[in-house]
Amino acid sequence: MKEIVNCVAYADGQRRADVELNKVHEALKNSGQFVWIGLHEPSENVLQRVQEEFNLHDLAIEDAHRAHQRPKIELYGDTLFIVLRTAQAIQQNHIEFGETHFFVGKNFIVIVRHGSSVAYTEVRARCEATPELLSKGPGFVLYAIMDFIVDRYFPVVHGLETELETIEEKIFNDRPSRETTEQIYQLKRELLEVKRAVSPLMEICSRLVRFDIKSISSETQPYFRDIHDHVMRINEMVDNTRELLNTALEANFSLISISQNDTSKKFAGWAAIFAVPTMVAGFWGMNFRFLPETDWQYGFYTVILGTAGVCSLLYFLFRRSGWL
Amino acid sequence: MKEIVNCVAYADGQRRADVELNKVHEALKNSGQFVWIGLHEPSENVLQRVQEEFNLHDLAIEDAHRAHQRPKIELYGDTLFIVLRTAQAIQQNHIEFGETHFFVGKNFIVIVRHGSSVAYTEVRARCEATPELLSKGPGFVLYAIMDFIVDRYFPVVHGLETELETIEEKIFNDRPSRETTEQIYQLKRELLEVKRAVSPLMEICSRLVRFDIKSISSETQPYFRDIHDHVMRINEMVDNTRELLNTALEANFSLISISQNDTSKKFAGWAAIFAVPTMVAGFWGMNFRFLPETDWQYGFYTVILGTAGVCSLLYFLFRRSGWL
Amino acid sequence: MKEIVNCVAYADGQRRADVELNKVHEALKNSGQFVWIGLHEPSENVLQRVQEEFNLHDLAIEDAHRAHQRPKIELYGDTLFIVLRTAQAIQQNHIEFGETHFFVGKNFIVIVRHGSSVAYTEVRARCEATPELLSKGPGFVLYAIMDFIVDRYFPVVHGLETELETIEEKIFNDRPSRETTEQIYQLKRELLEVKRAVSPLMEICSRLVRFDIKSISSETQPYFRDIHDHVMRINEMVDNTRELLNTALEANFSLISISQNDTSKKFAGWAAIFAVPTMVAGFWGMNFRFLPETDWQYGFYTVILGTAGVCSLLYFLFRRSGWL
Amino acid sequence: MKEIVNCVAYADGQRRADVELNKVHEALKNSGQFVWIGLHEPSENVLQRVQEEFNLHDLAIEDAHRAHQRPKIELYGDTLFIVLRTAQAIQQNHIEFGETHFFVGKNFIVIVRHGSSVAYTEVRARCEATPELLSKGPGFVLYAIMDFIVDRYFPVVHGLETELETIEEKIFNDRPSRETTEQIYQLKRELLEVKRAVSPLMEICSRLVRFDIKSISSETQPYFRDIHDHVMRINEMVDNTRELLNTALEANFSLISISQNDTSKKFAGWAAIFAVPTMVAGFWGMNFRFLPETDWQYGFYTVILGTAGVCSLLYFLFRRSGWL
Amino acid sequence: MKEIVNCVAYADGQRRADVELNKVHEALKNSGQFVWIGLHEPSENVLQRVQEEFNLHDLAIEDAHRAHQRPKIELYGDTLFIVLRTAQAIQQNHIEFGETHFFVGKNFIVIVRHGSSVAYTEVRARCEATPELLSKGPGFVLYAIMDFIVDRYFPVVHGLETELETIEEKIFNDRPSRETTEQIYQLKRELLEVKRAVSPLMEICSRLVRFDIKSISSETQPYFRDIHDHVMRINEMVDNTRELLNTALEANFSLISISQNDTSKKFAGWAAIFAVPTMVAGFWGMNFRFLPETDWQYGFYTVILGTAGVCSLLYFLFRRSGWL
Repeated sequence: MKEIVNCVAYADGQRRADVELNKVHEALKNSGQFVWIGLHEPSENVLQRVQEEFNLHDLAIEDAHRAHQRPKIELYGDTLFIVLRTAQAIQQNHIEFGETHFFVGKNFIVIVRHGSSVAYTEVRARCEATPELLSKGPGFVLYAIMDFIVDRYFPVVHGLETELETIEEKIFNDRPSRETTEQIYQLKRELLEVKRAVSPLMEICSRLVRFDIKSISSETQPYFRDIHDHVMRINEMVDNTRELLNTALEANFSLISISQNDTSKKFAGWAAIFAVPTMVAGFWGMNFRFLPETDWQYGFYTVILGTAGVCSLLYFLFRRSGWL
Repeated sequence: MKEIVNCVAYADGQRRADVELNKVHEALKNSGQFVWIGLHEPSENVLQRVQEEFNLHDLAIEDAHRAHQRPKIELYGDTLFIVLRTAQAIQQNHIEFGETHFFVGKNFIVIVRHGSSVAYTEVRARCEATPELLSKGPGFVLYAIMDFIVDRYFPVVHGLETELETIEEKIFNDRPSRETTEQIYQLKRELLEVKRAVSPLMEICSRLVRFDIKSISSETQPYFRDIHDHVMRINEMVDNTRELLNTALEANFSLISISQNDTSKKFAGWAAIFAVPTMVAGFWGMNFRFLPETDWQYGFYTVILGTAGVCSLLYFLFRRSGWL
Repeated sequence: MKEIVNCVAYADGQRRADVELNKVHEALKNSGQFVWIGLHEPSENVLQRVQEEFNLHDLAIEDAHRAHQRPKIELYGDTLFIVLRTAQAIQQNHIEFGETHFFVGKNFIVIVRHGSSVAYTEVRARCEATPELLSKGPGFVLYAIMDFIVDRYFPVVHGLETELETIEEKIFNDRPSRETTEQIYQLKRELLEVKRAVSPLMEICSRLVRFDIKSISSETQPYFRDIHDHVMRINEMVDNTRELLNTALEANFSLISISQNDTSKKFAGWAAIFAVPTMVAGFWGMNFRFLPETDWQYGFYTVILGTAGVCSLLYFLFRRSGWL
Repeated sequence: MKEIVNCVAYADGQRRADVELNKVHEALKNSGQFVWIGLHEPSENVLQRVQEEFNLHDLAIEDAHRAHQRPKIELYGDTLFIVLRTAQAIQQNHIEFGETHFFVGKNFIVIVRHGSSVAYTEVRARCEATPELLSKGPGFVLYAIMDFIVDRYFPVVHGLETELETIEEKIFNDRPSRETTEQIYQLKRELLEVKRAVSPLMEICSRLVRFDIKSISSETQPYFRDIHDHVMRINEMVDNTRELLNTALEANFSLISISQNDTSKKFAGWAAIFAVPTMVAGFWGMNFRFLPETDWQYGFYTVILGTAGVCSLLYFLFRRSGWL
Repeated sequence: MKEIVNCVAYADGQRRADVELNKVHEALKNSGQFVWIGLHEPSENVLQRVQEEFNLHDLAIEDAHRAHQRPKIELYGDTLFIVLRTAQAIQQNHIEFGETHFFVGKNFIVIVRHGSSVAYTEVRARCEATPELLSKGPGFVLYAIMDFIVDRYFPVVHGLETELETIEEKIFNDRPSRETTEQIYQLKRELLEVKRAVSPLMEICSRLVRFDIKSISSETQPYFRDIHDHVMRINEMVDNTRELLNTALEANFSLISISQNDTSKKFAGWAAIFAVPTMVAGFWGMNFRFLPETDWQYGFYTVILGTAGVCSLLYFLFRRSGWL
């Protein structure tokens, strides 16, 4: 995938022209136009050109290059700099995180994608299909992509919820196992990672709503409030899953103990049953001259049968009282 | 149930006329009138008509259609948009949640019901019976229905408290079981769900009280403060139950351990008792030429009786010291 | 006990006259006077008369009638409405809660008592004994009764602390028992209930201190700050007891486990000791023609004694290493 | 120790004269002077004289007499009333708490000592040695004594940290014991008590720094900020110790369980070893006419030796696999 | 290492001259110049000279001399006083902490290093290489060194994360051991220490950003915001590791219990298998005259083989049902 994915000028919500990165300042002379630039893991070289075109702050450019930032919002002069983490559920149990950085000015928006995130061509197409919204400027583009990013967290979190259900199933239906415990731990780890990616978003959204930022028209505020709402829902789902997981861990623990108690009881019960024939055999094994019925032909079988009877009785008694 | 449950114009607290959805704007020309519309899972079609009549925001209409929102309050221009979750205890252990959305303007209130909630015809009747209150306008209608919704949480939470009591009973009176542990987990899950539905209500109520919202007359503020109070009580009851449940989980755990200890002790005690005849029989089973009393006719019975005596003695000793 | 306990007019801190409820508005015409009314579980009828006399809000009257409110403070116009929970330690382990509601205006205070609280005649007598304070008006009466209510929480909380000490004693000195675990749970429950009654009091007191409330003269503010302080102390004592109780629960748990370990070790030790005679007897019980010393007259006794010696040795070894 | 420890007038940081309590108001006529009074568990009588001299509030005097307050700061008119808890480590494991109350006005400071605190003569001497600081007035005296009180918490907290280290040592090096569990509980209790004494100090210090209090010159603010800092450090140390203690409790618990598992394994291993001779002896104890090698003279010894060999083999196998 | 590491005057971002500590006030007469002084564990003597040159507050000098402060920021008049903790991972499991104190005025910065921190000569070289930044004055120097200090926390925290991974490995792959539990405890201790060093940094940074401090030019604010960001990331990593560690402790505990259950089951299974030959041998050891097949030459071997068969069968059954 090339570094500069797209570099397009828009006016009145309509795509006007593809411009070259070097000639962006010319396009910006038209007061009604704004430029939307999409970059993918850009080289220092490209970033430097962008910096010069839009007069961006050193620190923001450094962040945009190095990536591995935590989600944040900064205002350098009139330019807004936003960092978001993106997430994708690759397989059921594996989440891949990426990063997207935004530089938003009055007449430009630069979007820098890092890591395994999906391209935003779909969002661009959708925006171009609603010119009345796109005409609100870079602020709306920012909203559209943030909305796209946040919406992709829902399947991720649903995946984690499903995982919790699998764990519940195992805890309450199967016997306790080392695997379940390790799964609980892994799920906890994933939840923490998602939490870490999502929770700063609330602060970001509420700052976009509350503060008066020049590069974002006030009309778009309800839209950011909407994202704020989605983020709160995701956050709540994560917290919920986390709390249930903690309870699951404790329930698991209780069940392990109950299971251990069952083992002990079962063992004790069988030991008691086996103690009977041992004792009986011991008595008739004593070397007394006068042992009862030793001369009777069916003595042996009688004793065996009697013992078996007592054992069966014990078995049923133990069964009834829950020891077996 | 039909989509448009009701669409009525009121003036001076009196029901004036049933109006058609298309002709609402005509009814609203009368300055003293307001319209109260009740919808049930409306189609996109109906919602669009409502949107046009009252000039509502796209995002709010989208929310009202999709449902599955978290409780919230938004102000789009002069129109208030509120989302609440409704709850009903179907059986003792099953809670069904629904959603109700409100659009409140100076002279209209639109109520959109989703899911398994009860119809609000009862509330409408009660409102119409107190014209002096109903004359306060849409704000009072909002109060009346919110009050109705919140009051239905009380039986739900009482149900959960009863469930906790059942669990307590089982923990402290019965022997530890897998079922109790699973019940604790399920109750925790339900509590979290109720909590999630109720806790945003506090924020909603306090915003209704604190902020100056045009479509709600200041006279109704004490009423919303009253709801706020009820919500705080429900919230407190849920938190209380949750904290007790956590302690119950730990108590359960302690009792399982005590029970396991009892099992071990019982087993150890009986093993000690059974060890005696085994040892005695073993000694008289040795092939020494000179074994004491082997020639005595009642030797066998004496030994058996002596052993039984020692065992009985042990039994009483163990009983007294708590091992059996 | 009658509904209307008292209804007295005061001026300059002096008791002037007992007035009838219907004639209160006449008494209030004297600008220097205020009326102090004490009610006990009043009927709707009486409450309605009170409402009419002082022009109280519907919702407050409804609350005062239904009781079962959480402690709160509301300002309806110029009238202050306060709900407090009262507590009494009936026996060592049983707390009875009641409720007291206050309506405080510039020249009146109405006190509504519900449930098992003590009558406030004692407070009235004390107030009448200090006319210089009572002349500060209804605000001082409010203080006097709140102080009385809050002070009665101290013995309640001391009772709970004593209960904790009893539990500690049992945990660390006795053997683990089901009763102790249940007592911990019950104490937790009581602590939560007291907490629920006390903690809203802090908010109430600080609002009485911070806000400018017409019906309360600013001179009484230090007095409410004093109550605030007492409430904070009670609250701290409850929190402390709660945290210690949680640690006690965990310590209890550790001790149960240690006790279980002791059981296992004891059992293992005795099993090892008993294994010796069994083995020895087994060997001499084998049917070899040539067994050592079987022909010796004292063989049997020698073997028994030898075995007993080995067992004693094991006993002392195990004793020393902590297995018995 | 006498009630009135000291009553001295100062001017320009210099000790001027010892005054009698009754004549304090005369000394205060000199505008440059202030009076520093030290009391120790004063009688009601003395306190009343003090109250009259400086016109103090009833409630503050009541608090100063009764003691057993929680640390707090109150402003009655222009007079500051402060309550602090003092602590002393008597022996390694025993902390004694006392109370010191301050009344601070523009030209006086009254210090009331209760319980087992150390006398402040040392502080007085130090203050008199730095007249340039003492000339800042009662505010500086307040600082000097508060600093003295706070600094005495450091050895107390270090003592608790040492206790934690002793407990760690016992947990990780010795075998689990009831004593360690009880020690953990006692340390928790002490930590809670210190916490309760120290944490309100932060609020007190920050109010002394933030608010404009007439009786304290603004020059002394950095000094109170310094105390605030020390209090925060003590608080942090206490919190740290508390969190480590909680982890220690859990670690202790894990180690008890591991130890129990070791016991079970050891027992199981020895049981398996002892099962071999029992089985072998059992087989040769059967009354078949044709048993192998029973007629061989060394049969018995061969069997014994063979059995011992198998047992030794099992012992080494179990040893290697960690069961013994 | 000498006390006064460096004492250099700068103007327009260029190094001008090495000055002597006594002559600093002369250098400061040039309005464009500022002085950067580096000290290492200075004597009281040197600190006094510094205090006189820049007119610093007694309390700050005292702190700078005694060290062992918690990280903080204080403003004494126009001079900023900052204390930071520095950290270095010496070996994999050992962190060494140091302290650095800053005095920052309009035209000077004094840096006092204590303990095992690395010298800042590297930072000085880097600053001198970017004169356009260094020309921003002492504020930029403060930033450069704070950035250096904060960046050194990343390898420290990565070391702790690696340690957690080692512990995870041990918990989930090895059998439970005392060592792992102790390692968990040690890691917890280290995390608490790092947390204690890092978390006050957030407050320090945000105060540097928010407040208007004369000695720091507003241009440097984005730089301090950048540090704030790094500190938040470190803090988050520490919190994350801590939460995972807690879960690891609980998982460890569950696994110990499962392991104990496995031990019990294994023991019970083998006990059951061994019970069979004991019982059989017991029966044929009875002294009945008529025992089946005792006269048959291969009786003994048949019984042995039969018993072995039954035992094998039991072994496979137990194996299949998870008891062995």
